[in-house]
Amino acid sequence: MSLEPVLDRIDHDLNQATDRLMELLRIPSISTDPGYKSECERAADWLVADLQSIGVKASKRKTPGHPMVVGHIGDSGPHLVFYGHYDVQPVDPIDLWDHDPFDPAIEKTEAGTVIRGRGTSDDKGQLMTFVEACRAWKSVNGNLPGRITFFFEGEEESGSPSLVPFMTENSGELKGDIALICDTGLFDNNTPGITTMLRGLLGEELTITGPDKDLHSGMYGGAAINPIRVLSRVIAGLHNESGRITLPGFYEGVPEIEPAVMAQWAALGFDENSFLSDVGLSIPAGESDRSVLEMIWARPTCEVNGIWGGYQGDGFKTVLPSKANAKISFRLVGTQNPEKIRESFRTYVRNQLPPDCSVSFKEHGAAAASQMSITNPAFEKARQALSAEWPNDAAYIGSGGSIPIAGYFKEILNMDAMLIGFGNDDDRIHSPNEKYDLRSFHKGIRSWTRILHALNA
Amino acid sequence: MSLEPVLDRIDHDLNQATDRLMELLRIPSISTDPGYKSECERAADWLVADLQSIGVKASKRKTPGHPMVVGHIGDSGPHLVFYGHYDVQPVDPIDLWDHDPFDPAIEKTEAGTVIRGRGTSDDKGQLMTFVEACRAWKSVNGNLPGRITFFFEGEEESGSPSLVPFMTENSGELKGDIALICDTGLFDNNTPGITTMLRGLLGEELTITGPDKDLHSGMYGGAAINPIRVLSRVIAGLHNESGRITLPGFYEGVPEIEPAVMAQWAALGFDENSFLSDVGLSIPAGESDRSVLEMIWARPTCEVNGIWGGYQGDGFKTVLPSKANAKISFRLVGTQNPEKIRESFRTYVRNQLPPDCSVSFKEHGAAAASQMSITNPAFEKARQALSAEWPNDAAYIGSGGSIPIAGYFKEILNMDAMLIGFGNDDDRIHSPNEKYDLRSFHKGIRSWTRILHALNA
Repeated sequence: MSLEPVLDRIDHDLNQATDRLMELLRIPSISTDPGYKSECERAADWLVADLQSIGVKASKRKTPGHPMVVGHIGDSGPHLVFYGHYDVQPVDPIDLWDHDPFDPAIEKTEAGTVIRGRGTSDDKGQLMTFVEACRAWKSVNGNLPGRITFFFEGEEESGSPSLVPFMTENSGELKGDIALICDTGLFDNNTPGITTMLRGLLGEELTITGPDKDLHSGMYGGAAINPIRVLSRVIAGLHNESGRITLPGFYEGVPEIEPAVMAQWAALGFDENSFLSDVGLSIPAGESDRSVLEMIWARPTCEVNGIWGGYQGDGFKTVLPSKANAKISFRLVGTQNPEKIRESFRTYVRNQLPPDCSVSFKEHGAAAASQMSITNPAFEKARQALSAEWPNDAAYIGSGGSIPIAGYFKEILNMDAMLIGFGNDDDRIHSPNEKYDLRSFHKGIRSWTRILHALNA
Repeated sequence: MSLEPVLDRIDHDLNQATDRLMELLRIPSISTDPGYKSECERAADWLVADLQSIGVKASKRKTPGHPMVVGHIGDSGPHLVFYGHYDVQPVDPIDLWDHDPFDPAIEKTEAGTVIRGRGTSDDKGQLMTFVEACRAWKSVNGNLPGRITFFFEGEEESGSPSLVPFMTENSGELKGDIALICDTGLFDNNTPGITTMLRGLLGEELTITGPDKDLHSGMYGGAAINPIRVLSRVIAGLHNESGRITLPGFYEGVPEIEPAVMAQWAALGFDENSFLSDVGLSIPAGESDRSVLEMIWARPTCEVNGIWGGYQGDGFKTVLPSKANAKISFRLVGTQNPEKIRESFRTYVRNQLPPDCSVSFKEHGAAAASQMSITNPAFEKARQALSAEWPNDAAYIGSGGSIPIAGYFKEILNMDAMLIGFGNDDDRIHSPNEKYDLRSFHKGIRSWTRILHALNA
């Protein structure tokens, strides 16, 4: 098996690979919104057909939620299990998109050519880098190296409710030598990374009820409790003046970063100023005694992801609303226990309520943080393969995001997982005008080819 | 002119009067929403035609916003100017309505028969009590007593932007001996009131911007400022622990109620417990040292009427939003100056912002509180006429709501205004399932007939 002809084929066929990605991007597979259930099915069907077109025995597999796609090819050699997700985030606020999020387009920008649309970077574009690497390999060599299992999820953006049961029930089929997960980013434009630290995620929704119906603020204002006021106090009290989260027990299990790791991070030359100025900010908002890289890789957070109550339309309505709502999430690190933190949060909220108010909670997932061990030699082989493709050597890095699948491979299947991806900080994932650099797509396909080659050498 | 035949005619024709009101209620004249502009026109046209049908010279009058309706009849005797508004509040949350808010229905409830639909109580049903009184009078006597000017507005629920200019430009036509305003309530089911104290209203909308785009809370959470957190702190800081508003200078011009008035209010036997328990509450939420009647009639307030930001749909989205918004209103009393309070509020908000955040404001009207003088003998005549119709004698009362028109009649036209209305506390005005008691409609028509008779005696 020679590497160069496959890399050449990738360069030659890039337009066709891009066209295939565009087809997948046009399917609005928003997993969190029940209105898009059939579109999630359609995305799964598209992937099954695409895998079959390169000889993979692939099928759509039912779950209580959106389907999984599982495919197998090869019967000897190292067994790689590749994970990606075909579902995408909602698109609102839709009016901030420059064009239809599901009518993707190739755009030339000052920073290079990009593919614009929902899911380009998170995660359809990334998922397809691996599939296209396999396609090019197959078309040059007639077969794929070793054994490969493809495992695509459709609920990653909605808390992955079916993932653990599915992995548990199908553990024999999904267990391999190492897992490859493509849902992370480069360290910077020229420096690839293998992510070895991931924050966990706890999602909560709360509704505070005051009066049992909406009231006129003239008739009742002053005498009746306003639930928006109560909710605002709850949220305002979650952080203290120095940016620390106030929930009792919240920092149990939060480790200090070892000096050696801190030194390695310092050597990366992370530019705090440009990280913040890229999004219109200049001052780090987290704990006052931490660096920005610590804040986003190694410190837990509490964010309000949504809030609503009362009248939100044009004009004005002097309503004193019955209900106020918020969606709040916590990023977790180290050995913080999501369920203990959920309980601490709910107790805190209940303690803040005036006697006349009530609260109801809805849970939106809970996953602890992950820390990879890199003793498996596959890590160093992959790091060298990535270093050969990109201008700078690859680094072991952290990530502020939460990718619970990495932990599940370890817990359920006792497999190490390598998180390798090609996203950029400015990809606007989860935001309007999401994009994926065409260079990330192209070099991502080439990177996987090099990794396949290295792991089968 | 004899009173009894007119009252008999009202009783006899009540079904037809109700049918006419239903026609007007079916027009969705939501003034604050630009999408309903043509419906506001249609409501004005309907009123012009209805006034013409009883011999009033009525016409629709253009403004930069929704039209006014003005009509005149009679040429000698006391000149009464009757004011009402034909526009209504928005209907959201629409899913809390038991039926279409603009398909009104007569319903029998345990507490009596009601007319259910948007605008039944605020203010179409009330406005039509006076028109129907005139119709019955005309049909019995062949003409109306004295001189009457009808003056209907279509922007009362959206800050009345055209009202002051229109009254100023048409002062000759709108000036009479006394104004009658039907947009208030009974004191209780059996006790009519003439409202002599009204709170003022100041409306503000604010948008706080942090990052210049929506961000992924995993990638940026901890390092980037969240505007919902900032807005929550702003709102939480507006009241102190004892329920007082913290804005500097806010209580300038707030008078203490005179002992004689307090004694009169105490004699009304207001039931704080049932007032609150009717809306699912038990504990007054305002300043801890004030009675509920003081809170709603005589104390200023600050309410959040709406709040929104980030993801509000089904499921969960880990967005760190760029913007957070709120609509906030202040009820004013005594000689509190709305513009000074607006400035104090905006300065307070700006002082609360972290350096990376910005704020923009939108104003939604400003009107000072009103206090009527009751030295004009028309007040006592009207009070006796009302006392003759209802089980209990009429009282001079306060109101927590804001009806700036009363102040405008004084300031612009130097006229006293009598605020007389027949709404009940449980009418759910501005809320889903608004209603007006059929008894209020019926006895309201009879009440105006008695007042017309008394003022022309």
